[in-house]
Amino acid sequence: MQNVVNYINSNKESYVKELNEFLKIPSISTLAENKKDMLAAAKFVEQKLNGAGLENVRIIETKGHPLVYADWLHAPGKPTVLVYGHYDVQPVDPLNLWDSPPFEPKIKNGNIYARGATDDKGQMYMHIKSVEAYFKTVGTLPLNIKFIIEGEEEIGSHNLEVFVSKNRDLLKCDTVLISDTSLYGPGIPTLTYGLRGLSYMEVTLTGPNRDLHSGTFGGGVDNPINVLAKLISKLMDDNGKIKIPGFYDDVLKLTKKERENFKALPFSEKQYAKSLGVKELKGEKGFSTLERVWARPTLDCNGIYGGFTGEGAKTVLPSKATAKISMRLVPNQDPKKIGKLFSKYVKEIAPNTVKLEIKDLHGAYPIATSLDDKATIAAADALAKVFGKKTVFMREGGSIPIVVTFAKILKAAPVLMGMGLNTENLHSPNEHFNLNHFHLGILSSAYFLDEFSK
Amino acid sequence: MQNVVNYINSNKESYVKELNEFLKIPSISTLAENKKDMLAAAKFVEQKLNGAGLENVRIIETKGHPLVYADWLHAPGKPTVLVYGHYDVQPVDPLNLWDSPPFEPKIKNGNIYARGATDDKGQMYMHIKSVEAYFKTVGTLPLNIKFIIEGEEEIGSHNLEVFVSKNRDLLKCDTVLISDTSLYGPGIPTLTYGLRGLSYMEVTLTGPNRDLHSGTFGGGVDNPINVLAKLISKLMDDNGKIKIPGFYDDVLKLTKKERENFKALPFSEKQYAKSLGVKELKGEKGFSTLERVWARPTLDCNGIYGGFTGEGAKTVLPSKATAKISMRLVPNQDPKKIGKLFSKYVKEIAPNTVKLEIKDLHGAYPIATSLDDKATIAAADALAKVFGKKTVFMREGGSIPIVVTFAKILKAAPVLMGMGLNTENLHSPNEHFNLNHFHLGILSSAYFLDEFSK
Repeated sequence: MQNVVNYINSNKESYVKELNEFLKIPSISTLAENKKDMLAAAKFVEQKLNGAGLENVRIIETKGHPLVYADWLHAPGKPTVLVYGHYDVQPVDPLNLWDSPPFEPKIKNGNIYARGATDDKGQMYMHIKSVEAYFKTVGTLPLNIKFIIEGEEEIGSHNLEVFVSKNRDLLKCDTVLISDTSLYGPGIPTLTYGLRGLSYMEVTLTGPNRDLHSGTFGGGVDNPINVLAKLISKLMDDNGKIKIPGFYDDVLKLTKKERENFKALPFSEKQYAKSLGVKELKGEKGFSTLERVWARPTLDCNGIYGGFTGEGAKTVLPSKATAKISMRLVPNQDPKKIGKLFSKYVKEIAPNTVKLEIKDLHGAYPIATSLDDKATIAAADALAKVFGKKTVFMREGGSIPIVVTFAKILKAAPVLMGMGLNTENLHSPNEHFNLNHFHLGILSSAYFLDEFSK
Repeated sequence: MQNVVNYINSNKESYVKELNEFLKIPSISTLAENKKDMLAAAKFVEQKLNGAGLENVRIIETKGHPLVYADWLHAPGKPTVLVYGHYDVQPVDPLNLWDSPPFEPKIKNGNIYARGATDDKGQMYMHIKSVEAYFKTVGTLPLNIKFIIEGEEEIGSHNLEVFVSKNRDLLKCDTVLISDTSLYGPGIPTLTYGLRGLSYMEVTLTGPNRDLHSGTFGGGVDNPINVLAKLISKLMDDNGKIKIPGFYDDVLKLTKKERENFKALPFSEKQYAKSLGVKELKGEKGFSTLERVWARPTLDCNGIYGGFTGEGAKTVLPSKATAKISMRLVPNQDPKKIGKLFSKYVKEIAPNTVKLEIKDLHGAYPIATSLDDKATIAAADALAKVFGKKTVFMREGGSIPIVVTFAKILKAAPVLMGMGLNTENLHSPNEHFNLNHFHLGILSSAYFLDEFSK
């Protein structure tokens, strides 16, 4: 192991140079004009996987941008790790807000600035380099490894989802290693072991069959905006508890250990409120802010509209009002079941004075790995060794559908070993990646392979 | 009186011909391209007032379209009637929905079709003709009369409001006679004796200082749409009672007679609901639909918006949400006081988790004339004689600000002797005016002058 570590430490600078080349490729998956750059990025990955010493390296065509696959399977009796990452990046607009061009990487204050630096080229590249270090020193890996790198993460991973469901055997593994999330803070070794799910609904109420003059008709017929407001107000009580019957039935409670872990994290409610510009925070009673945003389900109106929305006054009694309402879910809530419970309740509380339409727009499953999972323990140990302090366990309030797909189809628990920071402007101008975390990430990847092989 | 009536009856056809000429002038007040048509219409009115036998006829320039004034003040000791009307009309688009060109009047099934037919050229013209009938027969009027005809009713009457407040003496009168409203139904003699007022507010809530990812932040900070919905739900209870403290303090209760009058009117709640396309009506408990829309205050959201309002799903926890909320008022509610009560209450119920902004966008005073008012009694008697049945008393749920201005500044109760029908497409394509009601209107005007002089 010491040889591997020494090798990684002595190649620190060349890793940055290679990343620099990778970041020059404008692999924006959503833009048709970047189609050939997508292929260039896939080829770059293919070449580096080959160069690292992996086998069966190949570009796999899909209906969209290609996948890149590689493996090394010569450790019989040892576990298999599937490394996932993506080579595609977000668009760069607004371009004028970038301090340096997004595809001309620039190093400043220990960070590398470029689109895709932290999301996800830099993070994904760490694992290629850790594998390479093993082959260049030990000449072999302590376990079996597979890589599946996609080019459509920023546009929904649809073709990868199809590929995974059709290639269970090819991708069979004991854990999926992903670096596409964040550290809890600079220098804090972090494992993200849970993601929330989502149930996204749209409710439209129709009252009168046309917009009416609110003078002539006001008071005589129910107003769909008034009704919608009352309906929304009945979805959650003043303690932040969702009032949909059965909503909490499947919620996996946080364990004592999890709550202690969260409590131990450095977090200031005051600063959090200040950074959001609010005088007072509000959430579910009985839970801390971190518990609320990571591990408790919630309900938010994402949008609402109806009637006159221009400037000034128009005296209309509108025909329609619509709200987009989404619920963040936690294990073991099922978005399909939650969507049905939502619809049932809304139908019950909606009055007969309006016509009700409910659409289930979108769903995503929540996930959380047990803290006793072997891969999770190995990753925590690896991170602790590299960072020289105890690994913290966090969750993430959003959803990453592909993680759930891997877990469900391959029956393999994910290890979310992110090295990014929430402050690194992912999806925004001046995206960057801390080069120290990049280096620690390569070491952490190498230590993980070692720990997980034991 | 019989001479006057005979004269009117024998000139029925020529009145229609004259109205036909008047309706050919495209006096659309809101369009700059029709500026010279506005003057042509004002001159038409001036000429007809002169021809009728009135004195001091003149066009009065304003900052906008001109007013036309006339009077006859040779009945000392007798009351003075101020006739108000307007010669401007609404725009005609969408033009393709007209069955015949809007400024080429066409008579079909006893109606005259043209823009301005019922609103308000036809109705206003009735009073010129009734006065003319007196001069052509009796040679004199039974009372004093003044005419003030404007060209900006469809764009807010601003210049007339200024003129009225600066010319109290010139316009001094005992009642203001206006035909710009509707009959309760075809052939039903109707007096509109009340109009609702208005207090139009805008409420904006700001939560976080920017739109947030609802996954990352959902549950940790209050959502301004959720809060706004709860806030709106607290404005009115399930019985349709407005919960703003003090809101009903100044409400003049309907008298037993008024409620009996309304109850006696032919009205089907079932048909009303059907015409609006709703299964069930809803309004303030303890009141009939007509009472609710005419004589009870109410509260309607006229518009609401916040967050993502496009198609599909976007997982945003929005920074802002806005609602436009208006209250229809009844005598003796004061829009300024109501605006303040609204603001006070909303401030009380809004939580500290959001920033609250309230704008008072617009206000209008309610008005209702006593059923014992002399001019009202005279008008009711006149209508009953002409139509051969008992006059019905209705109110109107909307506001007509100029009516309130006359009442407040000139201290004269209005007589709203409308001859239109709600079904005559005012402000819409194929506007028309029933020619029988036009004729009955001229007779009613003549009888009113007689009755009110007694």
